[in-house]
Amino acid sequence: MEKENYFCYWLSGFTDGEGCFSISFNKRNRLTLGIEVRPSFSIAQSGRTERFDSKINILTEIQTYFKCGFIRTYKADGMCKYEVRNISDIHTYIIPHFEKYPLLTVKKQDYKNFKTIITMMRSNLHRNKQGLIDIINIAFIMNPTGKRKLNKKELLNLFS
Amino acid sequence: MEKENYFCYWLSGFTDGEGCFSISFNKRNRLTLGIEVRPSFSIAQSGRTERFDSKINILTEIQTYFKCGFIRTYKADGMCKYEVRNISDIHTYIIPHFEKYPLLTVKKQDYKNFKTIITMMRSNLHRNKQGLIDIINIAFIMNPTGKRKLNKKELLNLFS
Repeated sequence: MEKENYFCYWLSGFTDGEGCFSISFNKRNRLTLGIEVRPSFSIAQSGRTERFDSKINILTEIQTYFKCGFIRTYKADGMCKYEVRNISDIHTYIIPHFEKYPLLTVKKQDYKNFKTIITMMRSNLHRNKQGLIDIINIAFIMNPTGKRKLNKKELLNLFS
Repeated sequence: MEKENYFCYWLSGFTDGEGCFSISFNKRNRLTLGIEVRPSFSIAQSGRTERFDSKINILTEIQTYFKCGFIRTYKADGMCKYEVRNISDIHTYIIPHFEKYPLLTVKKQDYKNFKTIITMMRSNLHRNKQGLIDIINIAFIMNPTGKRKLNKKELLNLFS
């Protein structure tokens, strides 16, 4: 077993534990429909101010492997986070990984919905009304415990 | 890549995310030194009352793979937990897995200390005073954010 392969399989397990696939929405008046769609793939390491450098190290290894994304650190509360927001990077680097090395927990369903939305956005469907409605409907199935600034009804009311 | 192998590598990644190696201590007057040493390897899935059955499914798969341990569920708050406490099971099934499929995060250090304590307990070192002092010293390096009923000084004062 090559080291690289081991890391790939390990990484899907680690993502099943600590990863997050999410779609958030922001009000943006300059956009035609007034809503920005923001995809995010992230892996957070939290809760320990001890051994902070080691936690950043593993996220740096993940960043190197994925060839994209950025790392933010919040040393005061021991939190650090690897995140990819760029749609092209998600399409080129993130999705191919999880197609080859699939998730095994309930997070797999979040990933599938995330992938569907990324495909729709690459076809610019988030720029027309029905496409955006479909994206919002799919996004609200994901991460049911996640907190949102606007609920689904408030979001749909902004443009429909 | 066989399915079983994939699961092994994935499982070490998942443990790096969600797993916990810990040693707890309880006052037990019937014991010679008055302190019971309780090792625990656990993997918890928390925070979502939705999709509860799927979360239990993955823990059941892990339990089947490790051939030991038990699963506890707390449906009210969406929490479920796989746990192995038996020293012989930890020695026979858990440690060989993580020797073959190593952890890659800071949790690796917790695992190493955990393994050291299990080896010491298998030699009954927790039943003599100096052995127990050594075990307590090692255990308090692990999981620095974990909550404990007694701090190190209180614990040592009980028997030394």
